[in-house]
Amino acid sequence: MLKHDDNELLARVGPGTPMGELFRRLWLPALMPSELPEPDCAPVRLRILGEDLVAFRDTEGRIGILQEFCPHRRASLFFGRNEECGLRCVYHGWKFDVEGRCTDMPSEPPETDFKHKVRMTAYPSLEWGGLIWIYMGPPERKPSPPEYEWALLPAAQRWQRKWIYEANYFQGMEGEIDTCHTSFLHAYKDKSSLVANLAKAHDAWQADKAPQLTVRRAPYGLYYGSRRNLGDGQYNWRITQWLLPTFSLIPQPGYPVSCRGYVPIDDHRTMVFNTSYNREAPMPAEDIEKLETGMTAAPELIPGTFLPVTNMANDYMIDREVQRTVSSTGIPGVNNQDRALVETMGPIVDRSKEHLGTSDAAVILARRIMLEHAKALAAGEEPLPTDGSIYRVRSLDVTTAIPDLDTLVATHGAELEVAAA
Amino acid sequence: MLKHDDNELLARVGPGTPMGELFRRLWLPALMPSELPEPDCAPVRLRILGEDLVAFRDTEGRIGILQEFCPHRRASLFFGRNEECGLRCVYHGWKFDVEGRCTDMPSEPPETDFKHKVRMTAYPSLEWGGLIWIYMGPPERKPSPPEYEWALLPAAQRWQRKWIYEANYFQGMEGEIDTCHTSFLHAYKDKSSLVANLAKAHDAWQADKAPQLTVRRAPYGLYYGSRRNLGDGQYNWRITQWLLPTFSLIPQPGYPVSCRGYVPIDDHRTMVFNTSYNREAPMPAEDIEKLETGMTAAPELIPGTFLPVTNMANDYMIDREVQRTVSSTGIPGVNNQDRALVETMGPIVDRSKEHLGTSDAAVILARRIMLEHAKALAAGEEPLPTDGSIYRVRSLDVTTAIPDLDTLVATHGAELEVAAA
Amino acid sequence: MLKHDDNELLARVGPGTPMGELFRRLWLPALMPSELPEPDCAPVRLRILGEDLVAFRDTEGRIGILQEFCPHRRASLFFGRNEECGLRCVYHGWKFDVEGRCTDMPSEPPETDFKHKVRMTAYPSLEWGGLIWIYMGPPERKPSPPEYEWALLPAAQRWQRKWIYEANYFQGMEGEIDTCHTSFLHAYKDKSSLVANLAKAHDAWQADKAPQLTVRRAPYGLYYGSRRNLGDGQYNWRITQWLLPTFSLIPQPGYPVSCRGYVPIDDHRTMVFNTSYNREAPMPAEDIEKLETGMTAAPELIPGTFLPVTNMANDYMIDREVQRTVSSTGIPGVNNQDRALVETMGPIVDRSKEHLGTSDAAVILARRIMLEHAKALAAGEEPLPTDGSIYRVRSLDVTTAIPDLDTLVATHGAELEVAAA
Repeated sequence: MLKHDDNELLARVGPGTPMGELFRRLWLPALMPSELPEPDCAPVRLRILGEDLVAFRDTEGRIGILQEFCPHRRASLFFGRNEECGLRCVYHGWKFDVEGRCTDMPSEPPETDFKHKVRMTAYPSLEWGGLIWIYMGPPERKPSPPEYEWALLPAAQRWQRKWIYEANYFQGMEGEIDTCHTSFLHAYKDKSSLVANLAKAHDAWQADKAPQLTVRRAPYGLYYGSRRNLGDGQYNWRITQWLLPTFSLIPQPGYPVSCRGYVPIDDHRTMVFNTSYNREAPMPAEDIEKLETGMTAAPELIPGTFLPVTNMANDYMIDREVQRTVSSTGIPGVNNQDRALVETMGPIVDRSKEHLGTSDAAVILARRIMLEHAKALAAGEEPLPTDGSIYRVRSLDVTTAIPDLDTLVATHGAELEVAAA
Repeated sequence: MLKHDDNELLARVGPGTPMGELFRRLWLPALMPSELPEPDCAPVRLRILGEDLVAFRDTEGRIGILQEFCPHRRASLFFGRNEECGLRCVYHGWKFDVEGRCTDMPSEPPETDFKHKVRMTAYPSLEWGGLIWIYMGPPERKPSPPEYEWALLPAAQRWQRKWIYEANYFQGMEGEIDTCHTSFLHAYKDKSSLVANLAKAHDAWQADKAPQLTVRRAPYGLYYGSRRNLGDGQYNWRITQWLLPTFSLIPQPGYPVSCRGYVPIDDHRTMVFNTSYNREAPMPAEDIEKLETGMTAAPELIPGTFLPVTNMANDYMIDREVQRTVSSTGIPGVNNQDRALVETMGPIVDRSKEHLGTSDAAVILARRIMLEHAKALAAGEEPLPTDGSIYRVRSLDVTTAIPDLDTLVATHGAELEVAAA
Repeated sequence: MLKHDDNELLARVGPGTPMGELFRRLWLPALMPSELPEPDCAPVRLRILGEDLVAFRDTEGRIGILQEFCPHRRASLFFGRNEECGLRCVYHGWKFDVEGRCTDMPSEPPETDFKHKVRMTAYPSLEWGGLIWIYMGPPERKPSPPEYEWALLPAAQRWQRKWIYEANYFQGMEGEIDTCHTSFLHAYKDKSSLVANLAKAHDAWQADKAPQLTVRRAPYGLYYGSRRNLGDGQYNWRITQWLLPTFSLIPQPGYPVSCRGYVPIDDHRTMVFNTSYNREAPMPAEDIEKLETGMTAAPELIPGTFLPVTNMANDYMIDREVQRTVSSTGIPGVNNQDRALVETMGPIVDRSKEHLGTSDAAVILARRIMLEHAKALAAGEEPLPTDGSIYRVRSLDVTTAIPDLDTLVATHGAELEVAAA
């Protein structure tokens, strides 16, 4: 459990909040490239960390992410005309380039130099790993690009989707680093509907429902190993990586593995970016098709939106007869199951009323690290590294006789790292 | 009128409020039995007095009403699996029985006794009089079942419906103990659309529109007599019972009579439970059909919901031509007429701006009693009896030459009581 | 820019606010006559300056505008029965005349004189210039009818429409007295879709996009001239009148001219009343048809409502291909373009973040005058005249060699005035 004040500290990410400042020390996924498909395409609205922004791709293909409202009279630049290397406000014609400079101010007499005095908020962006990223912090603290394994792969080896999550970012994050729930939330009596690697994982999850967790701090966040006793001196180990504050690497036996990032829209809503990938080869069409169904790592979306079809308003399409006979939830799809339980806790779960057990060890440490970092930053320290190569880590799902995490890591260390290029 | 502070005191019923505590000294209707039709059926969400709850019927047929959110990590037990005498949270498998005990905690190692330390809020329930009731107060103050006449009758002699009321509970309650409005709100130029006993009452209501009220306190709340002068030395008397805080018994000439209870969902919404009944015999199908139409004691509902078809969003289907030529409101159905006027006062009516007359005597005393009781309870007294037999009272509609209430009660006393079994 | 406190002072208009009091010194448009078409027609709800009201036309044709809620028990008089020179509350039959007097109280014994003690808020109304007006201030300060030119014309010479504006009134007002934006927001590459006088104005707007503004105070508010340099020693002058707080007269070359008033529903929503008119002759059917399309001075409405078809929820039907090739916005219709930019600033724009230029001179002075007047009124002065003849002014669109506003006004003074009757 957390005291009320710490729960607020953990959850609030708007401008000026300690946790919001921590987020503003990192590259964050902001958009899918398909939202800005070509030079001079339509600008798009986005909201990140409680800030209203507008993004556009200029004539040269550069991406600009600006404050949504024109500094002149606060008209929305969503309606702006994207033309000749700048986004022009259609209210009075002020034009801004990708760096927020006013490059034209036709409403004022040419002799004034007012346009040079106007500068709007513009955040650096990055096209990297199949996503468009944003950095909203101080320029001198801008990290190098985060070298997630999937970000380094050719595009054909990954599949990506984003969607809106109707709760605070950290609730989703906690579900990701909570291996224990897989034995229950994703339990099936009839596994025939599961994809291959999920069906394989399912057997281990059912073999031992009270995994023993060992948790370790790391420069990028933490990792933990969950040990499930399979009998005959064999253990299923899952090592999960948490790359604070938004990403995790969940172990899966075989392929694909998936990585989801939780980027706060504001305190109550989150944009999730999922990448499912194959480390070794392009993903064949039939595997993409399975991902597209919305039954695995990412939900099906309402066409033309980033809103899941299966959502709070329809009780996540729960079918009580299916719950009785096929799966523990009666909710179709693994990701839908996750969202159902976590979104309905409320926009910000009241952690002062929890009762945590030993299976919550990773969640407990992750919260502690977040709070420590936010407090350190507020005290003038810089707790986060700016070197993107620290994210070259992997999760691991392995069955072995090794009984403790540190020996396991010593033995399988190479499998936990992404080799240098 | 009420001062602002008293109005707040009257209306607010959440945990810890004085009026909320008063409600928590009584059995309250919570659900229709059809919502929990059989052992191990789907759990249902409910919200009472501002508390989010989940109800289920276990394998043995017992009803459990628990806090909605699992004490572990606050997942909603609405998604829980109802199995083998307990509701199992599908997030990490914790299982709870109808009394809120954790009977299984498979996510923790078997050697821990953590499950014995976890207890969640569970409220006693009661199947009684065709409804499922809840008691949310201190165990030592739990009353015996409330012996409303309809609760003691065979099921075939009553018809029941519940619906959501879009306003504070006491606004609805005030409409019930306000006999005067019947002469106006339920006035028809053309009575042909009215059911028989309503048409009969209508004549008296029109004969004297300024009834003289006499009000008397009672252990269960109050009763009052309204006297309408029919001429020739004859009076129509209506004695209405108010069984605080939620029920009233409205007199009707003949059959059926109806009793409605107003149970706060929270401060702004109410769940109303209506029972229409025949004291003497099963209700024939044609009478049930009339009740099902939604034109009399209870509204028609949008299928699959407890929301009235005729509601605020459609201006209660007011037809101005009908208002001009047939009825005073142009709104179809007596209950719809009541809801139209009371819900649109706003979620909590501003009683500081009222101008009350002599016809409001019962409303005035009911408020006073509620405020006195809530203040007494907050001061450590226990103003409410716990003996459910005090509710064995009846309303009365009679025409007589007797000019005063106390003589009337002395004369007709037996008709105002439900005989001992 | 405005400081936060001044922005609040400018925007808030509820009962008791300084700006709300300023509004309560003037006749304000309240309803279209079609909303109260005949004696004893259905009453209508309206909300003005944050006050909930109900309007009706009595048997004699008089208009009453009363507080919405009955002074007895606060039932809504929207459901009232409009009969025999009064609106009767259908809850207990209290009846009120157009001046708010209780003329019948049948729920009380005839011997009481309670009805003479009850008086409800009733505001004077006026049928004038094709609209129904309301005055909500102190009786002794009630102005004479505002003699706008269009209000003095025969009905056949004007076309009127009202609609709901989803933002604070002053945002809309600022758009009206901001001639500069016409060069940008209403710019077309292909003018073929424009009506004749708009196409003519368009040429001047494009010829000089940085008009030079000269601003002058006036007893009714202000006027300003914007000078656009057409070359060859010729200037296009537009003189716009601002008749505080709600009306403006926008110059147009030729006919029709339009006048819009912005009446606050509350702090976040506004009712706009548009009058398009011809000073000289009835408007032919084909000109009315053009206005009805919603492409010029007023938007098309969702049938049965005052809600524009083109609105925030559908991004004002922006078409990015049209924005690329035909018009600067890609939004159909001049008024829709205006609303798109101003409504999306938010319910109350944050003026503390603006950067104003020389083209904002009229906006700046208008704010100053509003704040001065509101503060003066709060200090016990009466800054507004009560003589409705001060509004007999006109706007002007003229091309001339005169280089300064004061000479222009001296020369064209007669064209800026409405002749005495």
